[in-house]
Amino acid sequence: MYKSLKEECFEANMMLPKLGLVLFTFGNVSTVDREKSVFAIKPSGVPYEILKPEDIVIMDFEARVVEGKLRPSSDTKTHALLYKTWDDIGGITHTHSTYAVAWAQAGKDIPVLGTTHADHTHQDIPCAEVLTDEMIKGNYEFETGNQIIDCFGERGLSHQELEMVLLQNHGPFTWGKDAAKSVYNAAVLEEIARMALLTLQVNPDTPRIKDTLRLKHYERKHGKNAYYGQGC
Amino acid sequence: MYKSLKEECFEANMMLPKLGLVLFTFGNVSTVDREKSVFAIKPSGVPYEILKPEDIVIMDFEARVVEGKLRPSSDTKTHALLYKTWDDIGGITHTHSTYAVAWAQAGKDIPVLGTTHADHTHQDIPCAEVLTDEMIKGNYEFETGNQIIDCFGERGLSHQELEMVLLQNHGPFTWGKDAAKSVYNAAVLEEIARMALLTLQVNPDTPRIKDTLRLKHYERKHGKNAYYGQGC
Amino acid sequence: MYKSLKEECFEANMMLPKLGLVLFTFGNVSTVDREKSVFAIKPSGVPYEILKPEDIVIMDFEARVVEGKLRPSSDTKTHALLYKTWDDIGGITHTHSTYAVAWAQAGKDIPVLGTTHADHTHQDIPCAEVLTDEMIKGNYEFETGNQIIDCFGERGLSHQELEMVLLQNHGPFTWGKDAAKSVYNAAVLEEIARMALLTLQVNPDTPRIKDTLRLKHYERKHGKNAYYGQGC
Amino acid sequence: MYKSLKEECFEANMMLPKLGLVLFTFGNVSTVDREKSVFAIKPSGVPYEILKPEDIVIMDFEARVVEGKLRPSSDTKTHALLYKTWDDIGGITHTHSTYAVAWAQAGKDIPVLGTTHADHTHQDIPCAEVLTDEMIKGNYEFETGNQIIDCFGERGLSHQELEMVLLQNHGPFTWGKDAAKSVYNAAVLEEIARMALLTLQVNPDTPRIKDTLRLKHYERKHGKNAYYGQGC
Repeated sequence: MYKSLKEECFEANMMLPKLGLVLFTFGNVSTVDREKSVFAIKPSGVPYEILKPEDIVIMDFEARVVEGKLRPSSDTKTHALLYKTWDDIGGITHTHSTYAVAWAQAGKDIPVLGTTHADHTHQDIPCAEVLTDEMIKGNYEFETGNQIIDCFGERGLSHQELEMVLLQNHGPFTWGKDAAKSVYNAAVLEEIARMALLTLQVNPDTPRIKDTLRLKHYERKHGKNAYYGQGC
Repeated sequence: MYKSLKEECFEANMMLPKLGLVLFTFGNVSTVDREKSVFAIKPSGVPYEILKPEDIVIMDFEARVVEGKLRPSSDTKTHALLYKTWDDIGGITHTHSTYAVAWAQAGKDIPVLGTTHADHTHQDIPCAEVLTDEMIKGNYEFETGNQIIDCFGERGLSHQELEMVLLQNHGPFTWGKDAAKSVYNAAVLEEIARMALLTLQVNPDTPRIKDTLRLKHYERKHGKNAYYGQGC
Repeated sequence: MYKSLKEECFEANMMLPKLGLVLFTFGNVSTVDREKSVFAIKPSGVPYEILKPEDIVIMDFEARVVEGKLRPSSDTKTHALLYKTWDDIGGITHTHSTYAVAWAQAGKDIPVLGTTHADHTHQDIPCAEVLTDEMIKGNYEFETGNQIIDCFGERGLSHQELEMVLLQNHGPFTWGKDAAKSVYNAAVLEEIARMALLTLQVNPDTPRIKDTLRLKHYERKHGKNAYYGQGC
Repeated sequence: MYKSLKEECFEANMMLPKLGLVLFTFGNVSTVDREKSVFAIKPSGVPYEILKPEDIVIMDFEARVVEGKLRPSSDTKTHALLYKTWDDIGGITHTHSTYAVAWAQAGKDIPVLGTTHADHTHQDIPCAEVLTDEMIKGNYEFETGNQIIDCFGERGLSHQELEMVLLQNHGPFTWGKDAAKSVYNAAVLEEIARMALLTLQVNPDTPRIKDTLRLKHYERKHGKNAYYGQGC
């Protein structure tokens, strides 16, 4: 019943090691079926070398198993809440990629320093504050989703214009119209994080890119006047 | 009609992922046919995994499509102006390679610190200033070409002795006698940028290489007394 | 007689180059047979390209050769003492992986800065102090084992909760329930070491991860309430 | 006549790209035949992808071509002088490997900070001073050899105990009993250079490794009491 959803999820997960975004099992990708109100996610702790499409677990938005013999990713509740709250996203990726984690551990937003960043979002990449003790001791993975959503709410950010976030002391979450786009965003975020650190090593006083150029590049690729790509 | 030009352009573009200079579609290479006054360039946003020689787009120097079904690279007008202005260059490469971008985002010229750099140019690699708001809001990609050309003009630099430039907040452009040489220069620039940052991390007070050694290495490889390579 | 033990040891050793943890022969893995009170270890200085299962050397816990034509790893006495003292470990890995060595040479513990670290241990990774001159001039490799064990004893650390250590001026040793787990820990340590350095480069004042989150992540993966993985 | 010498030289040169020590043609390896008083060296500027054993050039110690249709490496005179002066070395490697170049450009000796370094030499890796203007304008590549030899003479260093050097503003030269060992040393030097920079980034005040440990590790691998490896 969920064969194509599982295959899409499997293919997206297999991109993580190919793109150098995961060591061992430190990452997971999910993909949603909005009509059936379910999502497919990687099983917990299964090495990519032996992962098969039929291992993928099908969940509902309350993070209950719908189909699958294996335990789902330990981060499943975070995915579930993001799908439930942001009803236009189609895929979510979580990794512990090296440079994104470095910024998350440092507790710093990644400032928008150039066009590589602005091509993908015109905002700094926010680092959502570490969870409170109550959140950690409570429904931790669910509260992780809440922390991300609250960060966007409090800062007035759009999850459509900014498909990535860092969670302090933890690492990146990215999303997109489908699973493949969320993986793409995970790779872009890692590269942006690396470029930003290197830029500040060349010049610690580097200012942000100026507004006109920041918006120009974002609008080249997004919105009604976009002219990057093949328009499909 | 443009079959061999497209193939040359295709082969040069495919070198970018092989040399580790691009993530996804963050780069493009073009190659010119001076007799026909056209150049071939990568289509916009097409992944390297599925790019084919017949996808390459043929343009004239006013950046009008001569042949091709796909939309050309969004940076096409920059290429067109450089070909039109510098009538002895045969290929152009643009990437967002990591270390070159770090220097570009930092807004710093790359100082000539050693022989690896001096083997390729005896000058610092200039970082052309970010475009004015008027240029950005106007004919942006055309003005990007102007900014590069003006940088060389104002600083009295020769595009023959210095086949590479950084554009502030953006990244590198390189060129050469043909497309393959412009790709070669893109890889050299990335390595020079990396070495320069690491050098300053070992010793922040590193001075430039002295003039005699700088010119010696440049002249070993360039000009009438060159003795590097097989002389062909 | 020791065929499967040798093969297990061989397979684990071959993971080191695959995971990018060794240059040339700078590393070794051993695996123990508790029933027979012997362990299998890589022969000294044999390149991974030509290593064969039958080259593996079988040793007892007094570091005497039980079977094998080749000289065992020069670090064999360190392995022997660790197996003898910590009677529940099943495999040991020693490497000179780059970032772990950087911390060891710097003589610094790796602070627990995020969940990637806390997923594997809730403690800082200790850097055991350099051996005294007497230890170095005496039974050096045996004393290396003593220094590691003393470090854990003096600091009140558990070798079950912390399966990795740095030895000052030298590099990392890791262990686990079997050889494969000790190699896994070596790769995790290298990544944690890299992330920690990069984190401090982003923000030199980064504090440790807070206690609730540190313990939450450790307990997600370890102990009776663990819920990461497939529970097998 | 020189077939096996050419093949040995070819094989050693082909290790450079495999070990990640060269970009394009930025390196060369030579190997000597002491009985015939000739050495084999890579031709200048020939890409590794198309290099063939028969392209290797045979030279005498005055840097005159003995056999070969191609122009030899532009660094040939440096190799010739080192072979002539140090009559017990069998192979020489020159690269522009990234981290070794960073230290060379910074004009700094690489301090001996740990056992990875001390396993290979008990000395700091010297950075020979940049050549004088007279040397550069004169017989440059020959004087490069002189500068290396003078550096060892003035500092009282042994080219047998220290098979590697940095040349200021340029890069590393390494040697050994044969060409393969000189390539091995080039890879070791690059890794030592990388580890040293990272160590100083973790702790800028890192002192050198203490004398007992430094000598212990050197003597484990070298001299009459060595016990590392298979003793052959």
